[in-house]
Amino acid sequence: MSPSSLDELIESLRCLPGVGPKSAQRMAYHLLQRDQHGAARLGRALIHALEVLRHCERCNSFTEERVCPRCANPRRDATLLCVVEMPADLAMIEQTHSYSGLYYVLMGRLSPLDGVGPRELRLDKLLARATEEGVREVILATNFTNEGEATAHTVASLLAARGVKVSRLSRGVPVGGELEHTDIGTIAQALVERRAV
Amino acid sequence: MSPSSLDELIESLRCLPGVGPKSAQRMAYHLLQRDQHGAARLGRALIHALEVLRHCERCNSFTEERVCPRCANPRRDATLLCVVEMPADLAMIEQTHSYSGLYYVLMGRLSPLDGVGPRELRLDKLLARATEEGVREVILATNFTNEGEATAHTVASLLAARGVKVSRLSRGVPVGGELEHTDIGTIAQALVERRAV
Repeated sequence: MSPSSLDELIESLRCLPGVGPKSAQRMAYHLLQRDQHGAARLGRALIHALEVLRHCERCNSFTEERVCPRCANPRRDATLLCVVEMPADLAMIEQTHSYSGLYYVLMGRLSPLDGVGPRELRLDKLLARATEEGVREVILATNFTNEGEATAHTVASLLAARGVKVSRLSRGVPVGGELEHTDIGTIAQALVERRAV
Repeated sequence: MSPSSLDELIESLRCLPGVGPKSAQRMAYHLLQRDQHGAARLGRALIHALEVLRHCERCNSFTEERVCPRCANPRRDATLLCVVEMPADLAMIEQTHSYSGLYYVLMGRLSPLDGVGPRELRLDKLLARATEEGVREVILATNFTNEGEATAHTVASLLAARGVKVSRLSRGVPVGGELEHTDIGTIAQALVERRAV
């Protein structure tokens, strides 16, 4: 009995990750009743983003140009290529202000259970980029989750086979971290990978 | 450094209730990377819904017409008017198939802390509807939360002052409920409101 445009809106909201039927309903009512301005803005932003955003030919991240401003920046160190899972990871590394090389964004991770293998992740594109002339080292900065680790391992093997120098972010106790509140696995890893001082 | 259309999309997603900066980012990447079809559909659904949906002149729920099909249905019992907070509540009552009267949807509840008083909730509109000729009884079906109860109490006083017969959904142990797993407050209420058999 509810109007079809409302049903369609509720159903459409379910494409958002983690949004089930109840949340979708709540969101629809909220938008229509309390935030029509926000709803209109979201509608326009979605349609505009789909229209103008594409993947950078160099780093595979989202951009509005053929090559994103970061990859086109001659002041970045083109001998270093840092591989991350998502643009959010890239943003975190940028925020450290301690890396001036370039990036390659996988836009995901190997996840066999979800049907994401080397082909779906387009690892061929990464390999082509990483074996370009001028790349001296590839830094793997995928997450330290099971899937991130598996991804790093696979990429490392593929690159090593092509004679590319590969490194991985170090693991250990977080800066400012107390051992008492650090998980056992991390402490074990920090012991194995201890550094001479 | 991220493209403005992506930033705008992420910012726009934050108009959804319960969506913070991290979720908005995750949603944007998901839509752009994994569900462009869903994103386009959502964009269109938002814009279309805003364009065609309005409040029914009779029940205040969302509709695409001046008066919604339910209110216009001559087979519904126009002597009964059931007051609910949201369209989702109306849908629940309809699913019981044990009510054939009409509805009035408040589109919210009194919530002084959020600045929603009788004026913001447009109780004048409800009063005008409830005092129309032909309405024999108003059934208050707001939630049994603090705010829902306060709303029912206020509406009941206003209607009683105008000589309208008012009732409230009964409270008690849920059908199929076991006392052992029912909260104390509900049991206490069920004792106070016990019915002669």
